[in-house]
Amino acid sequence: MQDALVIAGKELKSRLFVGTGKFADHQEMKMALKEANADVVTVAVRRVDLSGEDQYILNDIPDKMTLMPNTSGARNAEEAVRIAHLAKAAGMGNWIKIEVISDNKYLLPNNHETLKATQQLVDEGFVVLPYMNPDLIVARQLEEAGAAAVMPLGSPIGSNRGIRMKEMIQIMIDEANVPIVVDAGIGRPSEAAEAMEMGADAVLVNTAIATANDPAQMAQAFDMAVKAGRAGYISGLGPTSTQAKASSPLTGFLNS
Amino acid sequence: MQDALVIAGKELKSRLFVGTGKFADHQEMKMALKEANADVVTVAVRRVDLSGEDQYILNDIPDKMTLMPNTSGARNAEEAVRIAHLAKAAGMGNWIKIEVISDNKYLLPNNHETLKATQQLVDEGFVVLPYMNPDLIVARQLEEAGAAAVMPLGSPIGSNRGIRMKEMIQIMIDEANVPIVVDAGIGRPSEAAEAMEMGADAVLVNTAIATANDPAQMAQAFDMAVKAGRAGYISGLGPTSTQAKASSPLTGFLNS
Amino acid sequence: MQDALVIAGKELKSRLFVGTGKFADHQEMKMALKEANADVVTVAVRRVDLSGEDQYILNDIPDKMTLMPNTSGARNAEEAVRIAHLAKAAGMGNWIKIEVISDNKYLLPNNHETLKATQQLVDEGFVVLPYMNPDLIVARQLEEAGAAAVMPLGSPIGSNRGIRMKEMIQIMIDEANVPIVVDAGIGRPSEAAEAMEMGADAVLVNTAIATANDPAQMAQAFDMAVKAGRAGYISGLGPTSTQAKASSPLTGFLNS
Amino acid sequence: MQDALVIAGKELKSRLFVGTGKFADHQEMKMALKEANADVVTVAVRRVDLSGEDQYILNDIPDKMTLMPNTSGARNAEEAVRIAHLAKAAGMGNWIKIEVISDNKYLLPNNHETLKATQQLVDEGFVVLPYMNPDLIVARQLEEAGAAAVMPLGSPIGSNRGIRMKEMIQIMIDEANVPIVVDAGIGRPSEAAEAMEMGADAVLVNTAIATANDPAQMAQAFDMAVKAGRAGYISGLGPTSTQAKASSPLTGFLNS
Repeated sequence: MQDALVIAGKELKSRLFVGTGKFADHQEMKMALKEANADVVTVAVRRVDLSGEDQYILNDIPDKMTLMPNTSGARNAEEAVRIAHLAKAAGMGNWIKIEVISDNKYLLPNNHETLKATQQLVDEGFVVLPYMNPDLIVARQLEEAGAAAVMPLGSPIGSNRGIRMKEMIQIMIDEANVPIVVDAGIGRPSEAAEAMEMGADAVLVNTAIATANDPAQMAQAFDMAVKAGRAGYISGLGPTSTQAKASSPLTGFLNS
Repeated sequence: MQDALVIAGKELKSRLFVGTGKFADHQEMKMALKEANADVVTVAVRRVDLSGEDQYILNDIPDKMTLMPNTSGARNAEEAVRIAHLAKAAGMGNWIKIEVISDNKYLLPNNHETLKATQQLVDEGFVVLPYMNPDLIVARQLEEAGAAAVMPLGSPIGSNRGIRMKEMIQIMIDEANVPIVVDAGIGRPSEAAEAMEMGADAVLVNTAIATANDPAQMAQAFDMAVKAGRAGYISGLGPTSTQAKASSPLTGFLNS
Repeated sequence: MQDALVIAGKELKSRLFVGTGKFADHQEMKMALKEANADVVTVAVRRVDLSGEDQYILNDIPDKMTLMPNTSGARNAEEAVRIAHLAKAAGMGNWIKIEVISDNKYLLPNNHETLKATQQLVDEGFVVLPYMNPDLIVARQLEEAGAAAVMPLGSPIGSNRGIRMKEMIQIMIDEANVPIVVDAGIGRPSEAAEAMEMGADAVLVNTAIATANDPAQMAQAFDMAVKAGRAGYISGLGPTSTQAKASSPLTGFLNS
Repeated sequence: MQDALVIAGKELKSRLFVGTGKFADHQEMKMALKEANADVVTVAVRRVDLSGEDQYILNDIPDKMTLMPNTSGARNAEEAVRIAHLAKAAGMGNWIKIEVISDNKYLLPNNHETLKATQQLVDEGFVVLPYMNPDLIVARQLEEAGAAAVMPLGSPIGSNRGIRMKEMIQIMIDEANVPIVVDAGIGRPSEAAEAMEMGADAVLVNTAIATANDPAQMAQAFDMAVKAGRAGYISGLGPTSTQAKASSPLTGFLNS
């Protein structure tokens, strides 16, 4: 089927975005990235050895993937902007995932600082994908500011708790015009499929893959789940009903 | 991966079972069966033209699939047994899905009559897969009676409401030794994936495929979702937590 | 409001039934029973000192309460009937809650043995309230057998997990004519209120009260919650909608 | 029990706040307010006949209630402030519930404009209770700005959909120091009880009461439900478990 997601003019074949944190080692990460079959990968700029000498995490990311450095560690717009500049200077391209975190325990994003950083970095020519607390009003402001997509959290980062903020994410999907990438909290393949069935444009998964017993196989599982959920969405899900509906058109009993 | 489901000595490559009811026409059904990539297909014996002359539904079922005729329309054990005999006499093989329905509105199974029919048909050499109301005690009795698998309902037939009886189905998966095939109510690919992540051995899907706008594509979606959920289960799902866990091992803020 | 529940000709002012297990001591139980303001209390016949000498649990149950001895410990119909006879012989009245448990880990009821015991004890003149796995077909059979009410489990006994079997319990409430008392698993006042809003006739609560830090106050909480849920049900719950509906008839903005 | 909620030095005996919209007529509203037994009532300033001649809605609000006028209709901070000034000038006291709505379909609050209005009105001496999209970071900013309480939405206004934003509201309850009043979306008494069991300080209910068949009785139901949920919270809810736990200390079977 013809169903590519286009972000900033780039046609993405996969709607699964992946992260690079929490893997036991680089080898495990490499295998998982390969099996995930993703087009977009995020990496914390702070984790990259910017002096570029050895054990460079970027070496383990396949060339064909689109790199989306993130501003993890930033506490306000200014710090996020500074990290974005570092990323660009280090040759990491012009995509940037904005993370401005104001809470250490739940790692919750600061929507207002995120909006400020988005405005500035869009003006500078970056392709900006902000991580956010689900909020239709802020999503529209980010859209207006030129965000290439918005990334609402399903539940706290790394919690594997699934799409707990479903109510607002569904409203964002139904009402906003910018692509919605559900980020954070997706812990199971079925939850990634569910996000796609809701009409999300993509999902980002990291912890669920990295903390599985077999990360490479789990990456495959998410690849299939995202495709399955998207195909379900496009195929037109049937209606639900409280009563039963016989699967057969012959509903009578045997001797009737 | 080596992960075949074996039922009655038959190795099944797919854990998706499909039904044949509710399709707009035979052509649509044929295409959906092809795309579902399933090994087992159920058909109501009552729908089959047993005189065998034309428009025979069985002609539209690929030869390589295992036929699982069902006793839809039976109101008690005796009627179910009679339908099973008809199926065998008509050359439909020796697999039989027992459906004994005692309620017309929700099409709910009668567990006790189902158990009686199972006992008799196992004694006669059938491979018996009973549809049932989720109940660990009855599942164990069916297992003892020789059922090849048990098929608890997720929610009422054709309702597309998902796995609403999750509590008891999970207990059955954890405690029973007979294979568990979640049947009835699965309305979305994500719900099929969820059943597999719970540890179910297979799922049966009919209405969700047949009532989609594009049944063939929806069949593909379920094929992928079942594989995704199973792969997730086997890969070892990571733990959930109420608090956030940073995806990066570097949890400090930028300037700290 | 005139809204008494009548069981076996007895008018019950409270729709909260309570149990006597798991309390730290008799004093704590006494206070909780007092604050629960319930009309019906269940006690395991096996716990009663049938020789009747001292520390008799029945002495701590207020006289005005209707005693509903239960057959906890029975593994089949025969044992349940035997315990019912013991209870009657010991002067515990003619109400009996049938518990036939076939699983030690989840304490799940055996519906078929429960039905057999119900049939026999109704014939003998008992007022029979069977504990059961939620199942509309069995509920109708129990009704036909003369059960005074049926008591489906919300989730496993003592789990405090709430009404996880909601789908089938709601169907039972909507379709059966016998009173429905949701029993087992209710862990919070809100869950008791929810059962009443669903249209259940009563709930039985034990563990949630007995294992609270302050059982007497928790008993009060459940008393109020059951009344609240029932009043909500009777008042006619308003419809839900996916979109917002302004609370004020004036929906325009300030200057418009 | 000694468990009053104190807001701005005022001791509130009831944790149920009520609204005045959507009632069929003033008489129905009066009766519902009486039965709700609430201390705080909100009224849209726009609905009040500020010329003060007749059919004045305020005349139908019992004198002992604390009036909390709201800025419904405001689209930004400036308009909210203007409405607050009108309310004060009209003698409606110094409490103000800030509603700044930026979406007509779901009536969603604009958190950033709400924060600006809060800062200004606190500075002017108002007791400010802002309606907000659940967001821990914004809750802390509102707290710092001097909000007397914060009012996160459970689901869209008037939807009766319950506490769908539970994940973030629970985090706010656990982490913020300002009182949390769950506002909007609560459609059933059990949902009000649930908010209290989560540890919320109060709830505001309007549509669920006003659109019931019998608003006065539904008001009673909510009064009891809030008390029940609060008592449950204070009593210390028992732990949940996946397995069963026998209610009786005697777990053995009859003959063992």
